[in-house]
Amino acid sequence: MDNSKCKCGNDCSNEQINEQVNKCGTENSNNSFSSDAVNFSEFKFENGLIPAIVQDIDSKEVLMFAYMNEEALKLTLNTKIAHYWSRSRQSLWKKGETSGHVQNVKQIRYDCDADCLLLEVDQIGGACHNGYRSCFYRTVDGKIVGEKVFDENDVYSK
Amino acid sequence: MDNSKCKCGNDCSNEQINEQVNKCGTENSNNSFSSDAVNFSEFKFENGLIPAIVQDIDSKEVLMFAYMNEEALKLTLNTKIAHYWSRSRQSLWKKGETSGHVQNVKQIRYDCDADCLLLEVDQIGGACHNGYRSCFYRTVDGKIVGEKVFDENDVYSK
Repeated sequence: MDNSKCKCGNDCSNEQINEQVNKCGTENSNNSFSSDAVNFSEFKFENGLIPAIVQDIDSKEVLMFAYMNEEALKLTLNTKIAHYWSRSRQSLWKKGETSGHVQNVKQIRYDCDADCLLLEVDQIGGACHNGYRSCFYRTVDGKIVGEKVFDENDVYSK
Repeated sequence: MDNSKCKCGNDCSNEQINEQVNKCGTENSNNSFSSDAVNFSEFKFENGLIPAIVQDIDSKEVLMFAYMNEEALKLTLNTKIAHYWSRSRQSLWKKGETSGHVQNVKQIRYDCDADCLLLEVDQIGGACHNGYRSCFYRTVDGKIVGEKVFDENDVYSK
């Protein structure tokens, strides 16, 4: 990843981003939500999980879809760095832990039924483990429409 | 609903939109996907369902989140009008059936894991049954950030 892409204002390497979650998170002073004002009992977790849609706050591109448990949501609210629950690994997952491609969370919305979240984020690098900016890089009839932003073999073999 | 908002090019009333799905659907000639080229076996349905994120193709606003079963996806591909599976009613659901607020589907993407769909739509009226353009009209700390576009009491009491 190009270090200049880190949006926290510091000259962060991938390693620094990984190690300095709070620094990157707290220095994003334009995050517009307050975790203190969040009423957790309002959200409908199903089998302990709530789906989360992730959208780029600038381009409005839908980047990925994941699930959160209550711990992941609390961590996300407190650090302002996106955390999820990995259903395949059955573990808490800090997005970008391996790649450095973290998501600085600027706002979280929830839907009318309170059973889905929408995270508006500043995405470092790309959201997709296949090297694309967005996980939704293909149409159902087989066209590649997404932008490739990194070489996944390079990033994940480090 | 203002009839002039129907994007199929005809002077459709709500009732006509409800009754003439195929007419409205097939006349949207700028839909960019072909249902013939879709390989259904590629998508991972979980307990028969796949989550679907719905985004306004022009404003890029995330409008709603729902589930599709295979029948709903096939109907959506064939009519180019969004159909879902209602988990609460346990039935196939044509979005806008009551309100006239149908979604003309322009493109469908799927994610890297093939377990989530992204529908890019032309939304007639509003997506939310509470009268908002998007179901994600609130932030988790309680601010209303969405645009109210119709009176839900008026639309759903007809």
